[in-house]
Amino acid sequence: MHSIQQLQNIIDKAVKETTYPLEPKELYQPIAYLMALGGKRLRPALVLMATDLFNGNIDDALSPALAVELFHNFTLMHDDIMDKAPLRRGQPTVHAKWNDSVAILSGDVMFVKAYKMMIQVKPEILSDVLEVFNATAIGVCEGQQIDMNFENRDIVEVDEYLEMIRLKTAVLVGGALKIGALIGNASKTDADNLYQFGENLGIAFQLQDDILDVYGDPLKFGKQVGGDIISNKKTFLLIKALELAKGDDLIALKHWITKTDFNAEEKVNAVRNIYDKIGIRDLSERLMQSYTQIALNNLEKIKAPAENKSVLMDFADMLIKREN
Amino acid sequence: MHSIQQLQNIIDKAVKETTYPLEPKELYQPIAYLMALGGKRLRPALVLMATDLFNGNIDDALSPALAVELFHNFTLMHDDIMDKAPLRRGQPTVHAKWNDSVAILSGDVMFVKAYKMMIQVKPEILSDVLEVFNATAIGVCEGQQIDMNFENRDIVEVDEYLEMIRLKTAVLVGGALKIGALIGNASKTDADNLYQFGENLGIAFQLQDDILDVYGDPLKFGKQVGGDIISNKKTFLLIKALELAKGDDLIALKHWITKTDFNAEEKVNAVRNIYDKIGIRDLSERLMQSYTQIALNNLEKIKAPAENKSVLMDFADMLIKREN
Repeated sequence: MHSIQQLQNIIDKAVKETTYPLEPKELYQPIAYLMALGGKRLRPALVLMATDLFNGNIDDALSPALAVELFHNFTLMHDDIMDKAPLRRGQPTVHAKWNDSVAILSGDVMFVKAYKMMIQVKPEILSDVLEVFNATAIGVCEGQQIDMNFENRDIVEVDEYLEMIRLKTAVLVGGALKIGALIGNASKTDADNLYQFGENLGIAFQLQDDILDVYGDPLKFGKQVGGDIISNKKTFLLIKALELAKGDDLIALKHWITKTDFNAEEKVNAVRNIYDKIGIRDLSERLMQSYTQIALNNLEKIKAPAENKSVLMDFADMLIKREN
Repeated sequence: MHSIQQLQNIIDKAVKETTYPLEPKELYQPIAYLMALGGKRLRPALVLMATDLFNGNIDDALSPALAVELFHNFTLMHDDIMDKAPLRRGQPTVHAKWNDSVAILSGDVMFVKAYKMMIQVKPEILSDVLEVFNATAIGVCEGQQIDMNFENRDIVEVDEYLEMIRLKTAVLVGGALKIGALIGNASKTDADNLYQFGENLGIAFQLQDDILDVYGDPLKFGKQVGGDIISNKKTFLLIKALELAKGDDLIALKHWITKTDFNAEEKVNAVRNIYDKIGIRDLSERLMQSYTQIALNNLEKIKAPAENKSVLMDFADMLIKREN
């Protein structure tokens, strides 16, 4: 069984070695550009990790793992157009560096390339793997649409938020693991349990992201701490705060949300103070930990060597303790 | 063997019977809307026709045929954003009726749905079918990019133009037929020949489109006759005219191309007069017919019952005689 770091390195090397056609350059340069921006390569590493868990051959999982990374970056390329995001990993987004048309079409090609890599699996599991991949892709798109719809709503319930992050973030974590499990010849039950492990861990992962956005160390976080507060992003923290805040706290919170002209630092500090008063950080961490615990229970049920499972436990542990 | 009309009716009925999830409605309503706008359903009918050619069961080809129609409409949805097109089949385009983000994401989901329908084929041909489908999808995207690049160029060569329409239009005609052939258990050679038939016919199809855009009957064409002339679209007709026109004709042609303030009818008539003087219509029709002839030669080589082949010959005949 390989360590997470080893698997990430394998992916990173394979991404670096991937070449694209030279022409039309407007299609292929943006793919190479975005793939080279880096990222933690966690999703593709999960494909390898799942194959490894069942003592499968991780060489068989490399193409599908790259397919997952290509797919993930395709969704980023399109999401960044929709979100009008100027930066991705500190560099200009594709639509900002080229234009919207390039980002749309280059993204489409990237999606096809993902399928091309995914169909490299053995014929006997091809249909099952593609079923997981298609369901994952549809879930991610639905999650992105629901997230965009939240922007136009005043009130979002906690349950709706959890369903949105399940679709937008967690199904891909589950899908990546399930695909790796199928490649490793896992039984259907084990593959399904590993999917559940991934989905629950994915929700925990996103909750941790939301917590770090408010409470992260600016020197370690990599993005602007407080970004979600500044943009009134309807995360678990804000939704729960709006539910629990009373009296002057509620008035102050609503004041900051509706204010269009403000000092960013002042708003971040004021909202964080309200969060602190009503214990939002603690609530968020407890929810995140409860999803992690459910994930670990899912892992428990899987028939695989204990020493192999420990890598996935370490991974879960790493996710909830990470600082960026 | 079914007639083209019968096959189109089968597709039309299946498209009408297809339902989509209700939520998120911004994702699924645009798919249902665009698919209901109609069109000739030629590409999916070709999948069925190819299966039928080899006496395969067309029921096995219905899902893949719908996949081809979904894929074609997905490319239209995204192309219309890039082309800033306000209308599609006389109705508002998806990005015009909703917005760009909806058209991007709904298109992405449509593409996944196409894959979902495509993987319904028998497991033993799944890998081959997906290889054709992926290659087709990449070709179509490359063609669209090259077409967009042409807009920013002063000179385009005839060969470059033919390669662009091969990718943008013809590979999907070939791909649809090849997928149908695989479903009908055709030999590799027959499937490849049918692909070539489709690709050559697809080029002829696009050339006929270009001719109709200039010489079509306004009452039958369905789009504005002269649209390509008004927008200086680099079709075979314009490229060839720029190559052949001399003296005052060339000066007049360049004058109309560079003029930004003009009366549309006057420009269309003037450019058409130049085309007529140098015999562009005749040249275009001869090129179109020569591609059709190559296609028929490809068909000739295929081992299939003569009476079945005649439906494909009728189809080729219909394409080059069509008025819309």
